[in-house]
Amino acid sequence: MSANPEIVTAAVLVIGDEILSGRTKDKNIGYIADYLTALGVDLREVRVVPDIEEEIVAAVNALRAKYTYLFTTGGIGPTHDDITADCVAAAFGVPLEFHPEAVAIMKERLAKTGGELNEARMRMTRIPKGGALVYNRVSGAPGFWIGNVIVMAGIPSVMQGMLDEVAPKLKTGAKLLSETIRADAKEGDVGTELGVIAKANPETIIGSYPFFDEKLGPNTNIVVRSRDPQKLAMAKAAVETMLAQVKSQLTAAR
Amino acid sequence: MSANPEIVTAAVLVIGDEILSGRTKDKNIGYIADYLTALGVDLREVRVVPDIEEEIVAAVNALRAKYTYLFTTGGIGPTHDDITADCVAAAFGVPLEFHPEAVAIMKERLAKTGGELNEARMRMTRIPKGGALVYNRVSGAPGFWIGNVIVMAGIPSVMQGMLDEVAPKLKTGAKLLSETIRADAKEGDVGTELGVIAKANPETIIGSYPFFDEKLGPNTNIVVRSRDPQKLAMAKAAVETMLAQVKSQLTAAR
Repeated sequence: MSANPEIVTAAVLVIGDEILSGRTKDKNIGYIADYLTALGVDLREVRVVPDIEEEIVAAVNALRAKYTYLFTTGGIGPTHDDITADCVAAAFGVPLEFHPEAVAIMKERLAKTGGELNEARMRMTRIPKGGALVYNRVSGAPGFWIGNVIVMAGIPSVMQGMLDEVAPKLKTGAKLLSETIRADAKEGDVGTELGVIAKANPETIIGSYPFFDEKLGPNTNIVVRSRDPQKLAMAKAAVETMLAQVKSQLTAAR
Repeated sequence: MSANPEIVTAAVLVIGDEILSGRTKDKNIGYIADYLTALGVDLREVRVVPDIEEEIVAAVNALRAKYTYLFTTGGIGPTHDDITADCVAAAFGVPLEFHPEAVAIMKERLAKTGGELNEARMRMTRIPKGGALVYNRVSGAPGFWIGNVIVMAGIPSVMQGMLDEVAPKLKTGAKLLSETIRADAKEGDVGTELGVIAKANPETIIGSYPFFDEKLGPNTNIVVRSRDPQKLAMAKAAVETMLAQVKSQLTAAR
């Protein structure tokens, strides 16, 4: 592996009043997080904003400037509150245009399912100029990809299909490898020592996650992550040695 | 009800690498959204950031300036990656100090559960100067409240207890009332008409949420929200009249 593997980053922007009111519980953030981690893309930030143009435009511009990719979910349906395409066009300063292929997809779809290609449905064929379609194998109406911004549906099954469409075209970096070590100790009993190990292993990321074990009570998972397998192995070994020492000290103290 | 009821807003900042890597699936955003909506506090934005000081400080400062309240979750445990208190202190430009009551709570707790008040556990008693404790009835270690920022744990049961602690002290506004109307129609068949109603009812928020009905196929829930019960009722009636019209037109067209 190269000494300086490229790091590819991403943000997710969830668009929709219904998430902020609690009416709909987001199921996309965790899915996209898992998906990008598996691909070797580091998810670095998530934002959830309401269906308000200035908020969406500001978030799109802040996030697309900062990360390799920005994935948005929600707001690409046929109703007045679906304003994501308008906002992304505004963010890029390009017109929003009816996309001939999107119109063709819509017509083909409606020929099968019934329904009229009315004003509402035509909204779903508007793509910012320069954007490429992201096909939707579930329900027809496409998402799109413009610059480094990938605009997807909010409905989880549709969003998941769109992610499968774009994944092969994404630039990916060296994967962040991960090892989980079950401490069988309380977080407060290993925290100081773990901080020393984290400092001594700069190219790793060490996280500590308390959980409650039905039999043993308060317990801790320690997660060591690194792009370098050797550095990962060294940090993991250091954590295991430390855990053995702390546990023998705690036993001796009893 | 007053003509201009006060609007109380909030943001949530979720802090933690584990959410962004997908290792932990957030369960707090939806819970807090429901909770605040029920209280009459409008959740306007959510961000998820990693355990990186400059990212946390920037997000705390951006969000506390913009909304009535900022609620944070995560990063207040005993380990090196728990840096929320440090970051909030930095954001407010105040020192982080051992809080005598937090230390006392910790000692009392450890007397019961066993364990040493070591350096790691002492981390959990550090509160930014001027902050008030938010008690934790589940596991002892408190959160805190400074300015308009409420710092809570990431573990859902602990976070929920902390939210119960602070709720009675929050300023709340007029509740956003909500009515859901099941359209029994495809979103694309009612979208244009719904947009007209949304425009004609400016003090309401009208959302449209497609779902799949096992028997009827693609269907739509229309949600009308307003702080004013009369305006809510008028918009709801307009939606119901429109739905009846659209359905009779669709039937006639068949």
